[in-house]
Formats: sequence, C-alpha cells, structure tokens
Amino acid sequence: MTFPLSPNVTSQTLVPHYIAAGNECELFEVAWTRKLPLLLKGPTGCGKTRFVSHMAARLGLPLSTVSCHDDLAAADLTGRYLLKGGDTVWIDGPLTRAVRNGGICYLDEIVEARKDVAVVLHPLTDDRRILPLERTGETLQAPPEFMLVVSYNPGYQSILKALKPSTKQRFIAIEFDFLPKDQEIAIVAAESGLEPRHVAPLVNLAHRLRAMKGHDLEEGVSTRLMVYCATLIGSGLNPQDAIAAAMIEPLTDDPDVRQALCEVAKAVYP
Amino acid sequence: MTFPLSPNVTSQTLVPHYIAAGNECELFEVAWTRKLPLLLKGPTGCGKTRFVSHMAARLGLPLSTVSCHDDLAAADLTGRYLLKGGDTVWIDGPLTRAVRNGGICYLDEIVEARKDVAVVLHPLTDDRRILPLERTGETLQAPPEFMLVVSYNPGYQSILKALKPSTKQRFIAIEFDFLPKDQEIAIVAAESGLEPRHVAPLVNLAHRLRAMKGHDLEEGVSTRLMVYCATLIGSGLNPQDAIAAAMIEPLTDDPDVRQALCEVAKAVYP
Amino acid sequence: MTFPLSPNVTSQTLVPHYIAAGNECELFEVAWTRKLPLLLKGPTGCGKTRFVSHMAARLGLPLSTVSCHDDLAAADLTGRYLLKGGDTVWIDGPLTRAVRNGGICYLDEIVEARKDVAVVLHPLTDDRRILPLERTGETLQAPPEFMLVVSYNPGYQSILKALKPSTKQRFIAIEFDFLPKDQEIAIVAAESGLEPRHVAPLVNLAHRLRAMKGHDLEEGVSTRLMVYCATLIGSGLNPQDAIAAAMIEPLTDDPDVRQALCEVAKAVYP
Amino acid sequence: MTFPLSPNVTSQTLVPHYIAAGNECELFEVAWTRKLPLLLKGPTGCGKTRFVSHMAARLGLPLSTVSCHDDLAAADLTGRYLLKGGDTVWIDGPLTRAVRNGGICYLDEIVEARKDVAVVLHPLTDDRRILPLERTGETLQAPPEFMLVVSYNPGYQSILKALKPSTKQRFIAIEFDFLPKDQEIAIVAAESGLEPRHVAPLVNLAHRLRAMKGHDLEEGVSTRLMVYCATLIGSGLNPQDAIAAAMIEPLTDDPDVRQALCEVAKAVYP
Amino acid sequence: MTFPLSPNVTSQTLVPHYIAAGNECELFEVAWTRKLPLLLKGPTGCGKTRFVSHMAARLGLPLSTVSCHDDLAAADLTGRYLLKGGDTVWIDGPLTRAVRNGGICYLDEIVEARKDVAVVLHPLTDDRRILPLERTGETLQAPPEFMLVVSYNPGYQSILKALKPSTKQRFIAIEFDFLPKDQEIAIVAAESGLEPRHVAPLVNLAHRLRAMKGHDLEEGVSTRLMVYCATLIGSGLNPQDAIAAAMIEPLTDDPDVRQALCEVAKAVYP
Amino acid sequence: MTFPLSPNVTSQTLVPHYIAAGNECELFEVAWTRKLPLLLKGPTGCGKTRFVSHMAARLGLPLSTVSCHDDLAAADLTGRYLLKGGDTVWIDGPLTRAVRNGGICYLDEIVEARKDVAVVLHPLTDDRRILPLERTGETLQAPPEFMLVVSYNPGYQSILKALKPSTKQRFIAIEFDFLPKDQEIAIVAAESGLEPRHVAPLVNLAHRLRAMKGHDLEEGVSTRLMVYCATLIGSGLNPQDAIAAAMIEPLTDDPDVRQALCEVAKAVYP
Repeated sequence: MTFPLSPNVTSQTLVPHYIAAGNECELFEVAWTRKLPLLLKGPTGCGKTRFVSHMAARLGLPLSTVSCHDDLAAADLTGRYLLKGGDTVWIDGPLTRAVRNGGICYLDEIVEARKDVAVVLHPLTDDRRILPLERTGETLQAPPEFMLVVSYNPGYQSILKALKPSTKQRFIAIEFDFLPKDQEIAIVAAESGLEPRHVAPLVNLAHRLRAMKGHDLEEGVSTRLMVYCATLIGSGLNPQDAIAAAMIEPLTDDPDVRQALCEVAKAVYP
Repeated sequence: MTFPLSPNVTSQTLVPHYIAAGNECELFEVAWTRKLPLLLKGPTGCGKTRFVSHMAARLGLPLSTVSCHDDLAAADLTGRYLLKGGDTVWIDGPLTRAVRNGGICYLDEIVEARKDVAVVLHPLTDDRRILPLERTGETLQAPPEFMLVVSYNPGYQSILKALKPSTKQRFIAIEFDFLPKDQEIAIVAAESGLEPRHVAPLVNLAHRLRAMKGHDLEEGVSTRLMVYCATLIGSGLNPQDAIAAAMIEPLTDDPDVRQALCEVAKAVYP
Repeated sequence: MTFPLSPNVTSQTLVPHYIAAGNECELFEVAWTRKLPLLLKGPTGCGKTRFVSHMAARLGLPLSTVSCHDDLAAADLTGRYLLKGGDTVWIDGPLTRAVRNGGICYLDEIVEARKDVAVVLHPLTDDRRILPLERTGETLQAPPEFMLVVSYNPGYQSILKALKPSTKQRFIAIEFDFLPKDQEIAIVAAESGLEPRHVAPLVNLAHRLRAMKGHDLEEGVSTRLMVYCATLIGSGLNPQDAIAAAMIEPLTDDPDVRQALCEVAKAVYP
Repeated sequence: MTFPLSPNVTSQTLVPHYIAAGNECELFEVAWTRKLPLLLKGPTGCGKTRFVSHMAARLGLPLSTVSCHDDLAAADLTGRYLLKGGDTVWIDGPLTRAVRNGGICYLDEIVEARKDVAVVLHPLTDDRRILPLERTGETLQAPPEFMLVVSYNPGYQSILKALKPSTKQRFIAIEFDFLPKDQEIAIVAAESGLEPRHVAPLVNLAHRLRAMKGHDLEEGVSTRLMVYCATLIGSGLNPQDAIAAAMIEPLTDDPDVRQALCEVAKAVYP
Repeated sequence: MTFPLSPNVTSQTLVPHYIAAGNECELFEVAWTRKLPLLLKGPTGCGKTRFVSHMAARLGLPLSTVSCHDDLAAADLTGRYLLKGGDTVWIDGPLTRAVRNGGICYLDEIVEARKDVAVVLHPLTDDRRILPLERTGETLQAPPEFMLVVSYNPGYQSILKALKPSTKQRFIAIEFDFLPKDQEIAIVAAESGLEPRHVAPLVNLAHRLRAMKGHDLEEGVSTRLMVYCATLIGSGLNPQDAIAAAMIEPLTDDPDVRQALCEVAKAVYP
Repeated sequence: MTFPLSPNVTSQTLVPHYIAAGNECELFEVAWTRKLPLLLKGPTGCGKTRFVSHMAARLGLPLSTVSCHDDLAAADLTGRYLLKGGDTVWIDGPLTRAVRNGGICYLDEIVEARKDVAVVLHPLTDDRRILPLERTGETLQAPPEFMLVVSYNPGYQSILKALKPSTKQRFIAIEFDFLPKDQEIAIVAAESGLEPRHVAPLVNLAHRLRAMKGHDLEEGVSTRLMVYCATLIGSGLNPQDAIAAAMIEPLTDDPDVRQALCEVAKAVYP
C-alpha cells in the first residue's frame, strides 16, 4: 500500500564529492554494518547533508531526507489516513517507506521537530528495531538494509528545543566542524570555477569571520556562502560587492557590524 | 495537475518603471544566471516589490508573489489535498507551481511566515534545487528557469521572528534603502502628477521625518505616502491638510508627536 | 460564483444624518476619486461608522461592513471552500465580493483581527490594487468602483495588537474626536427627542467625564450613551437614575469611582 | 431554515416570583420599549437570571438563555454549517433564532465568552440593530420584538477577561446586589418551606459571611445556598450540619477558615 | 436517539461495602429527596468514588461515572454530531443520557475538566433543572430521578484550576477525610485477606506518613495503597519489600525522602 | 470490531535475556497474580523495557508497548472513529485491544503523555478494573489476563510533567538503577561480542561518568551506549574514537565538558 508516485525519487545514483576530515566515513560504515543509529552534530553549512548523500551513494543505498521543522509531527514521518472515494486510506510517510523498503532515512535538524517525533524513533533505535504504527495496528520490523541518521546544530539548542538524553543515548554521534583551510580552498574552487589563488583570500576572510561567532555574529560564514561569493566574482562582479552580497549581508543586519566586516574584508581582499 | 484557473495571472507583461540606486540589477542578473537564491532586505515602502516586478519583466519571467503572514504555513506554498466529488485531490500551491513551470517565486516578508516555511525552502536553496512534497511522495527538480527571491524588513525582526542563520546562509543578499533625493523627487512627481518643484519640499520633509526613526517614530515615511500626499495636493487639498492625512497621521497616534510633526511640516512647507 | 442569498443586503439607500467636524468629507471624496485607501482613527462611539455610512450613501456606493475580532482570519474576508453535495465549492467572503462587484468595504476595528488579515490588504493598497486568492489560484483586479476603508481606536492598541508600520503606511488617515458641544447637543436632541435645553447639562456632564479618561475611567462617555440617557429621561425616568444607568454604570465597576461620578452628576444636573 | 426541534422550548409561560429591590423593573420596561440593550451587573446568585425570567414572562416574551463560557464562540450564537446527506446545511444558533423570531436573548456571564462574541453583538446594539451572518451572506434586521440582555459579575473580571469599553458603551446598565434582610427571609422561607423565624438567623449569618468577602472568602454566600440550607433543616438535618454542608463547605476549602466560619455559625445559630 | 450499545452498562447491581464516617449517608439521601446537587471534597483514595457507588446501589439508582481530565469538554458530556452514512447524527453524551433516563451522574475530579463543563452544569443545578443542548436546539427537563454529584480534591486546586464560586455555590458539599484507625484496619484486612493484627502496624505507619503531607510528601498514603501492601505481604513478600513497593515508592522519587521513609517503616514494622 | 491487520504482532515468543538485580521478578509475578497495576521507575537505558519483555515472555503473555509522547492523547490508547465508506467506524486503540484480549499493556514514559491519559487509567487501576469508552458508550471489564504496566524516569519530571499523586497511588512501584559492575560487564560482553577483559575498563569509565550526573552531565551513560562502544571496538575502531562516538558525544555538546570527558577516558582506557 506504499504511495505509488515516488518509489525511488530520492535515491541518488552519482556519488557526490566529499573529502573526509577525520574518521567519519569509517564510523558511518561500522554503524551501517552493525545496525547502529547515527547522530551528526555540527554548525550550519559544514557539510553534514552532503556527507550523508556521499555515504548513501558510496554504499549504494537509497536515501530519504526529511527537513524537520516546528510543525513536523510523528504522523508526517509514519503516515496518515486520507480520504479516497469516501474511504479512509492509509498512506505511508517517508520513515515508514524507508523501513518497509530499506535504505537510509535522514532526519535533518531533528531538534526542530515536535517532540513526538523523537519518541517514534525510540523503538527503531534499540535492539528491537521496530516501528509500531498505532493508527493501523501494524508493527514493522526494520530490515537489515535500514539505517537511521539524524542531525542537529548544537549551537541552536535552547531549553525548549533540545534532544532528551533518553533520545541522544540511542545514537552514536559524530561531531562535524568546518574544513581545514586547504580542503576548503579546493572545494570552493571546484564548485565555483574560480581559481584557487583567488579563493584563498576568501577562505582567510571566512576564518576571521568565524572567529567572531558568539561575539558580533550569531554564526560563522558557511562554505556554501563562500561558493556563492566565488561564483559572483567568477561572473565578473567586483570582489568587494560579491563579498558584501554573499559573505556579509547574509550574516548581519546591524549597520555597525556590517561596517566593521566590510573593513575586515577590505584588509583581507584589497 | 496544476490548478486550472490561474496559469499566468500573476505574470507581468509591461516593464514597471525602476531606477537603480546601486548594483542591484547586476546582482539580480548574476543570481539568475548562476541559479543563486536572492534575499532583499530593507525598510517598508522603499521599492523592493517594485524592483522584483521590474526585474521579472526585464528578464521576461513569470512572477508569482506571496505576501507572508503569521499563519502562512508550508502547505500554503506547496499545496494541499482538497475534497472533489468524494476524493481527495492534490492542488499545487504557488511555490510548487513556480517550480513546475519555472519563473520567479517571490516571498514577501518571509520572517512573518511560520517556521516550517523556511525549512521547505532549504532543499530548494542548496545545490540539489529540489522541492520534496512529502504529502504526495513526489520530489520535484527545479528547472533552470526557476528562481527564488525572498524579502524582509530588518527593522521588524524580533527574537521570536527572525530568519535562522541556517536559512539566511542559503541566500545572497542585497540591502535596500530609500532613494537619493533627486531620484525620489522624480518618482513622486511622475506618479502623482504634481510638479517637481512642489514635490521637493515634501521630500525634504520626508528626510527630516526619517531621521526621527527609532526616536519618536517607529518607521520613517515611505515613498508611497509621499505619492499619496502629492496626489492629495494635486487634487486641490490644502497642503498642510494633505501632509497631515498622508505623512503624519499614518506614522503616529501620539498627540504630542503629531503636534511636533505638524510644526516641522509648517516649517518645511509654509 | 458569488453567494446567492445576499447580493446587496448591506447597501444603504437613505443618506444617514452626519455633520462634518472638519475636512473629513472632502478627504474621503478625494481618496475615492484617486483610489487611495482610507484609515479612520478615533475613540469609541465618536461616529466613525456613521461617517462611512453617510459617505457611502452620498456617493451612491454599496457598503459592506465587517466588524473585526480576535478570530477574524483572512479567509473570513476572502472566502472558503465549503462542502456541497460531496464537492468543495468556493464561497466568496465579503472583501472578495466587494472587489468583484465594486463599492466600499469597511473593516471596523482592524487591529482586532488576526495578523494575516492585514497582509491580505497589502496588494489591494498599493498601485497594483489586486486581491490574490491563493486557495483558488485567482488574482482579482479591483475595479475603479472599489474602495477600502479601515478604522481603529488608537487608545486600545497594545504591543500585541497594533497595525504594523508597513500596513499603516498604505493608507491616508483621518483622526476623529468627539463633536463640539453645540453639535453634540443638536445630535443627542435629534436622536432622543429630548429638548436641547435638557440635553445641554448631559453634554456638560459628558465633557467632565471625558476629562477623567486615563485617570479613573478607561474611556470617556460616548455620544451613543448620551442618546440612551436622554431617551430614558424622555421616557419619564428620574434623571439621576437615567444618568446612573446610561452614563455611569457602563463606564465603571468600581464602587468608589461610581460614587464620585454620581456626585459629579448631581452637581451638574441637580 | 430554523432548527425544527425546539421552536419555543425555552419560552416561559408562568411568571416566576420576583420582588424588586429598586427601579430595575421600570428600567427594563423602558429599555424594552425604546429598544435599548441591557447589561446586568452583580454577584453570584443575587437573582439576575430570575429577574430576566420574571420580566420575560411579565412582558409575554419568549426567553432564550445562553450561559457563556471560555469556549463559546460567535458561531455558537449565530449558527454553523453542518453536514446533511453530503450537503452543508446552515443551522441557526440561539441568537439568530431570537433575532428571526423576536423575544429576549439573554447571554449570562458574557465576559466568559470568547472575544469575537462581543463583536457579533456590536451591530445589534447600535441604531442599525442588524445581525450580519458572514458565513451565509445574510444580514438580518432585528424586529421590534427583539431585545438583548447580557450579564456579568464585576468581581470576576480580570485583565484578560473584561468587557471592552467599546462593548460596554452599547448598553444601559443595572447593578444588582443581595436583597435587603426582610425580603431575603421571605424568599428563603417561601422556597424552602422553613418557617421565617428559623430562616432569620440564617440570613443574619449570611450577612456576616458576606462581610468577609475579599478577606477570607472569595465570594459571599448566595441566596440559593441559604435556600439549600433551609431545605436541609426542614428535612430534619441538624442545623449545624446543614449550615456546614450548604453555607460553609461550598465557600472555602481552607481548614482554618472553615473552623472560623463554624464558630461564627455556632454563635449566630446556637 | 440514545446510543444503543450501552443502555445500563455502568449501573451497579450489588451494594459495595461502605462504612460511614459521619452523616454523609443521611446528607446524600436528603439531597436526593430534595433534588439538590452534591459536591464531595477530599484527598486521593479516601473513598469518595466508593461512597457514590454505595449510595447509588442502596437507592437502586443507575450510576454513570465520568473521570474528568484536562481535555474533557462540555460536548464530551452532552453529546456530539457524528457522521453516519453521509449524515450527521446526534449521539448523546453520558450527562445527557443520565438526564434523559434518570439516575446519578457522577463527575469525578471536576476541577480537571475544561471550564465550559462547569457552565453546562449551571442550568441543571438551579431550580430550573434543565439541560440546554445548543447544538440540537433541545432543552431537556431533568426528571425527579436525576441527581448530579461532583467531586474534587481541594489539595490540588491551583489558580488556573479551581471551581468558580458561581459554580461551587450551586452544590451542597461534604468533606471527606481518611477513615478512623479501627475502620481502616477492618477495611484493609477485609479487602486484602491479611489478618487485622498484621494490618494494624501498616495503618500506624500510614498515619505517620500522612502527618508528613505538605512537608516531605505531596499527599498522604491512601487506603488503596495499604490494601496493595497487605496483599503483597499476604502473598508471601517480605514486609519491608512490600512496604517499599506499595507505600513508599509510589509516594516519592527523592532518594533522601525515600531513605527517611524506609527508616520510619523499619521502626513501625520491624 | 478489533482492527484486523495486527492481532498479535507485538507479542513475543522468545524470552529476552534478563538478569534480576533484586526482587523485581518476584514483585512482578505477585502483581500479575493479584491483579495489581505496576509502575517502573528508573533512569534512561537501565533495562526497564527489557525487563517487561522478559516477564511477558516468561509468563507467556502478549505484550503491547506504547511509547508515550507530548501529543499522545487518551484517544490514541482507547480508539477513534474513522471514516469507512461514508460511515464512521470505531477502531480500538492498543489499550482497548489489550483489555479486550488480555495480556500486558506497557505505557513507556507515561509522564510524557497528555494528562487525559492518566485519567483513562484510573478506573482500570482500582477494584473496578473497567475501561469506559465514552465515545462508544461501552464499559469494558478487564479480564483476569489483563495487566497494566507503566514507567517513567524520575530525573525528567518537571512541575508541568509529573504524575499526579492520585495516579501514582494506584500502582505498586519498583525502582530500577544501573546494574552492578559484574553484571554490566557480562551483559555488555554478551551483546557486543567483545571480550569481558576489554569491556571492564568501559564499565569503569561509565561509573566515573555516572558520578558526574547532575554536575556536568544531565544523565549518566546508559548500558546501551556501552554496548554500542564495545561493538565499535569489536569492529576494529580505535578505542578512543569509539569512546568519543558512543560514550562522550551523545552525552554532551559542551566543548569544555567534552574535553574533560576525553581526558577521563584516556586515563581509564589508555
């Protein structure tokens, strides 16, 4: 009774580019082999989503990604009854589809979801590996090909929004951080088409901006914004304009902070 | 299965008048060419909406505008199931229609929307450029002709209502401000039909009122209100009455502030 | 597909009595001619609603009035899908009907409504003058015969309930206050049938009570309550009893304040 | 399209016993004759509901009473669409029925209701006397035989729950208080069947307990509880037990206060 | 149109064992005879529910019990429209069934219910004894065989959850407390099958624990827990283990308090 | 009318491995024999769920487990009406199924559920042992084969989320804690396949980490995480990496605390 329109639409056939910064690939593979659920921690735009895409493709597994948000409830993952010709018909959600068919189910920013979501994951993350569907009365046994991966950004957690210890203690966890300078230059150059020698000062600037996190900036600049910036420069835009549009305006609305960042930018990329 | 009543109703066929204040047109075009999502920041009534209309018409793209508000949820953008003859039928929302058909989707005052809206935009704003429709099980790939533009007014952001860094860092951003004096006189005169020499003191008055923002006034007077004021004067209304109705009463309810503004108005436009 | 039961039920055929206190009639006519939206500000019971009725009748326009409240949502103005014989049928709301058919749509106490209401008004109040109906996919162009009027009482605005500057700056605004003494005596006498010389002391009393606003009284006594009071006296009730029932009890529940007001009443109307 | 089951079920055919304490009957009659809406204020159990029943019967009017509560919304008064054989059918609420058919509609404890209720009453309480039904598109004109009466207990009003001045100023108001001693003895004796000489000490006790309101007791003892108490005594119960069960336990849960009240009771009714 | 499945399922045919501690049986009978609504107050597990069962059986009345909770709304008591074959059909709730058929309707822990529940009870608890069903338009007259009983635990009442005086003053009230020592020993022995001489030290322990209420314990130990404890001992469990499982662990989660209670237990039941 | 898809899916046929730490098996058996409801208290991952599975299998009883969460309402346990071919059909929830068919119903983390859930349990946990289904009008009598078990973690209880004394006092309770060192080594070795001599230092480390609970750590490390850690080591991962991924990252996001825990880990498992 799986929903007919999209059996494999989210599976990936090419292996996305990814350079490991540590032992994360090895840990992912052991977790996959030993059927352990995995938790990825790290700041915005440091490559968690790409890492999951990379591993899914490398292991030849279908990947189903769910971006969690304030209103995401357990039923959005497990499924719902809908009206069809006067009857109520059960439609599997993405988690249920992944449990039925195997593959990786990746819940991005899990702390954003409503709290009932975490509880749905509990019986899937202990040795039972089951998904009870209370509304249909079914209890699904996850096949060996099923793996659960979740992520969150520790910097965002508030008292109201934090994973409970009873949930966290069901996962092995990997912490992510931004890439080392050389790797980041290589990636930004590859993705934007800008020469590495022009990318290098942008990465230097990013490191200076990331050091301001927690003081004037809520979050450091992501690798993605640097790719945007290099893309704008590669399209012929004035570098200071490109830096303002891609690396300063998205970080702050405060006129004084913006002015200060522009000064830093001029010093680093004159 | 697109909704049949309104295929192109929001597309624009004439190029609305717009005078660039900086490099915003160039930045928009690069963003369009390189498929980068765009964020417009700036105060009320400074011309963000008109800028988007202008660029859409200039590039020959259909434009779909959504004014965000407190109750705007992801489903209002992506679509819903409705009952038709006893069956539930899926109806695309404006974002889904834009992704299916191409063109610019412009979300005005994005910070007002419910938080799940921002998350729906995430997979559309990274290199995947996909729109997963969890309720139908589809995952749409945005065509090259699709572009996402969002705007907000930094002056309104509160703790409860602010774009998360993980969302902001998915856009290149342009900051807007009010027009330089000469340009503003030209525009107000063109739109109201009042002669520029009678418009000039109104613009002088507006500059004085904008300087009071953050002190006695929550927001400076918009170009739109100046067009209203010039229109009233052009219709024969006493200038002081027109200024009160169009440039003072809409800005404040405080009797003392109103009195002070009237004094300023008399000094500037005796 | 307009709802069939009530095409013109709220239109007015007689011109309600209204005496202008300033230039409000002239401003209304210019706003109507130049298609500018209008905002009326002023205290409870000072005649805003009657002014709109008067102008609508004078200009020969149908008038549709909506009293806003905490639960009034955008869909209450624009329309909803309802079930009819198993199908969902779209039913226009009062704002949509006014946009389709022309005439004045008057939203009374707009600050009371839910915030999405204000946003629905935005595209109707700039030069586009359109009403997008996201649920049906239609975008309606307001005809020249359509005018939007809204009102609110500045004395009630709290932090939670206030028009955003981005909404206020879309209207020209008129401030209302209570009538001058002579006009108020004339109106109360006309409406209640009590002789002006018996009404005069009531108006004097009202002025004394209005001066207490913000101190012991939340709001000054309205012209309406004075009509009630004069009506009771005209029906033979003891004047002190009539004043207590119509001009004191509705204003306060505090025994001390009530006692003080009764003393004032006895002094003014012995 | 009135609901068929209950055309007149709440009308009253016998005139309930009522002894006027002041000019309230005269005021009610004038309000009825002059079509003015009426507001009754006073503490729990002082006879407001009975007064309305009495006046309705005396004037030969059908009476429809609605006890307001936290979840009472405008639609509970005006009506709703219900599903009937696949169609949505409009069902009038009690206020709409009263406006269509005439008679008194009495909203008890109006401050308890949701705020949209007050706004529904506004057009019924000015000179228009209309009830707009936005959902059906109808606007009903109240017939001369319609009268609106509302009540509330000023002692309960909190900041969150208070009638807005713009609502209060639409009513003439009567304040109620407990009856004078002799009248209360007569009523309690009549209703309970206990001889007046045995009722008198209970009324004395009640007066002492009412004086404690605001100190140890949230509310003074009502006439109703005295009728209960006299009934229990008349049924043979020990007077001290009857007083405890009917006049002390319902007033307080605090052991110390209860002990003190029992002492007072023993002193008054030894 | 009563719901067909359960005409009498909650009626009781055997008289449950109950030993009166005071005049509560007499008061109940007078209330029944004189048609007065009854309010039972007292701590958890002191026998209020059993008292009602006992009186219902003794008077030969059907008993319908509703355990109130945070989400219990008026409609859960009065009834709802449900869909049946495309039509909406009205289904009586338990209160409506009791009013139609007669018998005792017992609302346990009434303060837990939503506030609209209390208001539904108002017209049933004054001399009208009616139940208006706004949704169907019916007004039911309670037959002489109908009696309303409600209960609550005064120890739980918070500011948010308390019976309003206007509700409390509609009931005669009985306060319950734990049984005297001898009666409690007899009951625990009878229900558990443990000999009274082994029960006596448990009752002594309970009295010591009840004295700690408000200090280290939120609530004193109930008679029910003592029956559990005696049952465990009668089944061969070590008495200290039984006391820990039935009389200490259910009362506290604090390690220090638990330790202290175990010391007390060892002293009392060595 | 039981839901057809899943009659016994959650029953267990193999007896899961469990080593008793105290008298919990004996207490469970007595509770089962004497029909007493059982409450399990203890920290995350200490084996409560496995204990219930073990006892259910040992006693040959079907087991139905419900993980409670913030949105779990009474209807999720008792059942709901669903639309089937235009009619509403009642579908039993898991609690109702267990009451109809017998067996253990286990509500995990009961304090997380909405408060109406606790009240549904009340009539099942006194001598009546009934489950009233207000929506269908049925009252089910639990068969002797039915047992109710609930659990919670006392460390999580907040003021908003705590079992009321009136609920707690309906259960006998067992407190769980982590296993003694030797038992824990045996279990971790058995489940992970790692030799006990390599497991022993992990258990030592866990004891040191558990001692930090309430200071730097919100919760001590669970046995489950130690099994994960030993599994990673057994798969060839560097022990320090395994400890970081399985015993440190899941416990804390604080860089300083993480650093300190790594130091401890190096000291214990060099």
